[in-house]
Amino acid sequence: MKRRSSAKRVVVGIDLGGTKILAAVYDEKHRLLAREKKATRAELGPQAVVKRAADCVYDALAAAALPHTAIAAVGVGVPGMIDARGSVLVAPNLHWRNFPFGKLLSKRLDIPVTVVNDVQAGTMAVQHYGAGRGLQDFVCMFIGTGIGGGLVLRGEQYRGAGGMGGEIGHMVVVAYFGPKCGCGNYGCLEAVASRSAIVRRVIKAMEDGQKTVVRSLCDGDTSRIRSRILAEAYRQDDKLVREIVNDASHYIGIGAANLINVLNPQAVILGGGLIEALGNRMLPRIKKAAFAHTIAASDERVNILDSGLGDDAGILGGALAARKLAKL
Amino acid sequence: MKRRSSAKRVVVGIDLGGTKILAAVYDEKHRLLAREKKATRAELGPQAVVKRAADCVYDALAAAALPHTAIAAVGVGVPGMIDARGSVLVAPNLHWRNFPFGKLLSKRLDIPVTVVNDVQAGTMAVQHYGAGRGLQDFVCMFIGTGIGGGLVLRGEQYRGAGGMGGEIGHMVVVAYFGPKCGCGNYGCLEAVASRSAIVRRVIKAMEDGQKTVVRSLCDGDTSRIRSRILAEAYRQDDKLVREIVNDASHYIGIGAANLINVLNPQAVILGGGLIEALGNRMLPRIKKAAFAHTIAASDERVNILDSGLGDDAGILGGALAARKLAKL
Repeated sequence: MKRRSSAKRVVVGIDLGGTKILAAVYDEKHRLLAREKKATRAELGPQAVVKRAADCVYDALAAAALPHTAIAAVGVGVPGMIDARGSVLVAPNLHWRNFPFGKLLSKRLDIPVTVVNDVQAGTMAVQHYGAGRGLQDFVCMFIGTGIGGGLVLRGEQYRGAGGMGGEIGHMVVVAYFGPKCGCGNYGCLEAVASRSAIVRRVIKAMEDGQKTVVRSLCDGDTSRIRSRILAEAYRQDDKLVREIVNDASHYIGIGAANLINVLNPQAVILGGGLIEALGNRMLPRIKKAAFAHTIAASDERVNILDSGLGDDAGILGGALAARKLAKL
Repeated sequence: MKRRSSAKRVVVGIDLGGTKILAAVYDEKHRLLAREKKATRAELGPQAVVKRAADCVYDALAAAALPHTAIAAVGVGVPGMIDARGSVLVAPNLHWRNFPFGKLLSKRLDIPVTVVNDVQAGTMAVQHYGAGRGLQDFVCMFIGTGIGGGLVLRGEQYRGAGGMGGEIGHMVVVAYFGPKCGCGNYGCLEAVASRSAIVRRVIKAMEDGQKTVVRSLCDGDTSRIRSRILAEAYRQDDKLVREIVNDASHYIGIGAANLINVLNPQAVILGGGLIEALGNRMLPRIKKAAFAHTIAASDERVNILDSGLGDDAGILGGALAARKLAKL
């Protein structure tokens, strides 16, 4: 009996992204027991994604050699707006609208499920397990397909009066002159500094006939260009990729400076796929641009650093939300 | 005796600006009894400004027909960094550095004096007496010589971990392509949308021989161009001034959008000299640009409005600080 009640303290965190699903099992001390990955394949429709997410949970449980009954709760981070009942109101990357994901996944797994915004989940993870531990006031910048932000102010996550704050990717940093953003405007940070923005510029340059190792690294299939290929091209001293990634770092630094000037936090913490793959290359340039653009008074003692969680911020945050749901 | 103790509840608020000093007397119900104004004349040195501020207080008391002994405390808003003892660490517009203004003014007046940052004072006034009444989460944008910002989050003023937040004027909104800012960087909001930025553009156009009524409004002395002259030129349909002021409104809207995207407040509240003089012209354009640049999710129910305090935000905030000091 004792062993069983202890086993019920296991939780699963899911990071449901536009391209992949990550599921991880954590024990009662929040130690990672197993982690599994699946392609999201959002093009198959939302019901198929529910099934794939459930399968990913089963795979992770199998890898941890735990029975289904061991799980107290599942927490999922989703890139979109979530309502209080775990319905996804809108998730552009998944092409979902008003989809009761939490309810359906819970039914399929027969386990309580909580759904949270992925950036909120990541920020929670950074606060409790990453570079934000012990800090009262910090800003997270997650740089990947898009750019999302999380604010922790006076020790608590802050999303604004309407719960929709943190949209740092849509700060305009190059008004008039900047490229078009997915949101329809011009010159948003996301339009000049996200992985998508970088890839767009690389593809354009390739079409213009510029020389780059990306051509061979992606076997001529530009849809395969992701952070890892960019990192490899950077490592190989590819002039084109270096220039474009360095430009992006400069803009991220300007975005960080804007946040520092407005919020004067203790730290700006960077995460997301692009930072995971290229952080060591980008961070020095991000810092340089950031401190060049903060007014003297507010750059003092502001730390700009990596989250320290790599790809795990999402699953960790999901697991934290699950733990909260299960009141563990 | 009774009358005397009631009289001791009078406070004075001072708004010490780069060009003028405003002093106002408020009774125990925070009703305005009298207000006086003097040129700052910072070029005469900090000691002279102490004397001018004290004289302004005496003038205001005389106008209110109150004796010196009636004042419980004086609160001063200063455009700079202030330490806990009321010393001005740095005030660029006044060319002050480490000047014990509070101590010296208190000695000269023989009345307790508290010194606060002018933007913090203004934000306090907006929260208690202006458009921020009853709101828990809002952002103030004060547009004048420079651009300063105040944040009220979860019902309390927020200045960040180091107390230096709110520097919204140094958000970069036109990276690379923007004009040089007083801070040394390029493309800050202040460099494209403050009154100084507008005046700079107007003077440049005048030097280039462009037609404008400003030439006659300022009697050929460009150093006299202030918000009031700009407002008059706008009223007279001056093409040049309209274009430049409209551009500034557009950028202020983008700045407001950046703050909305990051903080999702209930309201963005505008104040300062430029807004006081040109608010009715600028506000519609500011709103249009702001809502065009907020992502759909966060513009809902965000109010963008005038502070409702006109030129009084500074003196009101100073008086509030005085009231706090005197524990009234």
